Amino acid sequence: MTGAWTKCKSVLVTGSSRGIGLQLVKELAERSDRPARIIATARDPASSTALQEISKAYQGVHMVTLDVNSQESISSAVQEVQSIVGSEGLSCLINNAAINISTDLNTVTPDAMMTTFQVNSVSPLFVTKAFLPLLQTSASQSTGMGLHRAAVINISSILGSIQANWGETAAFKAYAYRTSKAALNMLTRCLAVDLGPKGIVCMSLHPGWVKTDMGGPLAELTVEESVSGMLSVLSTLSEDDNGGFKDYRGHTLPW
Amino acid sequence: MTGAWTKCKSVLVTGSSRGIGLQLVKELAERSDRPARIIATARDPASSTALQEISKAYQGVHMVTLDVNSQESISSAVQEVQSIVGSEGLSCLINNAAINISTDLNTVTPDAMMTTFQVNSVSPLFVTKAFLPLLQTSASQSTGMGLHRAAVINISSILGSIQANWGETAAFKAYAYRTSKAALNMLTRCLAVDLGPKGIVCMSLHPGWVKTDMGGPLAELTVEESVSGMLSVLSTLSEDDNGGFKDYRGHTLPW
Repeated sequence: MTGAWTKCKSVLVTGSSRGIGLQLVKELAERSDRPARIIATARDPASSTALQEISKAYQGVHMVTLDVNSQESISSAVQEVQSIVGSEGLSCLINNAAINISTDLNTVTPDAMMTTFQVNSVSPLFVTKAFLPLLQTSASQSTGMGLHRAAVINISSILGSIQANWGETAAFKAYAYRTSKAALNMLTRCLAVDLGPKGIVCMSLHPGWVKTDMGGPLAELTVEESVSGMLSVLSTLSEDDNGGFKDYRGHTLPW
Repeated sequence: MTGAWTKCKSVLVTGSSRGIGLQLVKELAERSDRPARIIATARDPASSTALQEISKAYQGVHMVTLDVNSQESISSAVQEVQSIVGSEGLSCLINNAAINISTDLNTVTPDAMMTTFQVNSVSPLFVTKAFLPLLQTSASQSTGMGLHRAAVINISSILGSIQANWGETAAFKAYAYRTSKAALNMLTRCLAVDLGPKGIVCMSLHPGWVKTDMGGPLAELTVEESVSGMLSVLSTLSEDDNGGFKDYRGHTLPW
């Protein structure tokens, strides 16, 4: 939907030093209908040359340090983002930071399960909780539901679909990653139930299988294809998407 | 199905010192078509007077110490169970041990999320992995799928259904419990994919909302109603149940 992102005053992306997060920041910054403020967060933004270049090339791209696993780092980031967005609040939070540890039945360890759950499922909850006051500030200034008001987007995966983990699509073994993304999908649904009535739309979004450090070189999509698809899907974000699970083409996925 | 449990040579139940686990052991021991060996495990079986009484009252009920969160305890339990079941192996593992920490959006903590995930989702995986050789021994002695061969039953919950977490059924807020049970359902599916071809059927089972210490006094079902329903559902266990999610009445639940 042309123009939809203009109505979104600010977007924050976690894990934006590389991969899908970096591309989200880049494509948002390049759009003719771009949001006024793009907040690119990462554990160590200074270490990402690519992110540094984007923030130099485009106005209104703010780099903020955010380690999603540290409550202290989350609190500092909220302070910093508050000073960037001011009284407008935060319009859209994209929980993108994630890890994938290769784990089949033989190689999976308790530590791999716990660490993956922490980063991929627990951190998005506490990042969202911390930014909730800023999201509510934005939500309080509009009606309806969508990018113009307030949104929480959890970057999930078809690998988190319990239903789809069968037959051909079950070939990819990943105990830690799959359980963490199923848990993230449940988190999306819990948040949608609690935040929907406050005017904040929450959804899970599957980027496709993307050629990134995580997805590997055999993946089906370039990061550009995935991200332009996701931004297009998000541009039509509405009440109907609250508590939903879609892919980068806008297709609804089974839980 | 009358007689089905006779064909199941041995059942192991985790968390059997009270609640649903205790009742599973009791009703299995009381059945006319009971399995020959019932292995009741708990962190500290000696502290459960009820369990002590059952093991005295019925032959073939073995109490084994098993702290599902301790790899050392799991390994000791496997040794002990090996000596109980001998060359027949283990027919049915019921992963029942679980915790529920009350967590709505305001009260949820990272620690509550991590601890609940560990007990409810990670432990069933590593208990299953540890008992896999004994399950495979049993599976190698029959064909088909069901209680007569080998089974892993994960006691899950409708609260782990992402689909059902909406509208009226979303009223029960439980971030930690819900995410852990959604993750457990994914684990069931991962195990079903990997163990099904070895003749071990894996499913998730929802006991209903039961009047136990966990379920509270307002719950809909007595523990007797829930457990007799579950044992009846399990008595018809077949290939069709592999990777499935049913409730105590045998109704298929959505993921």
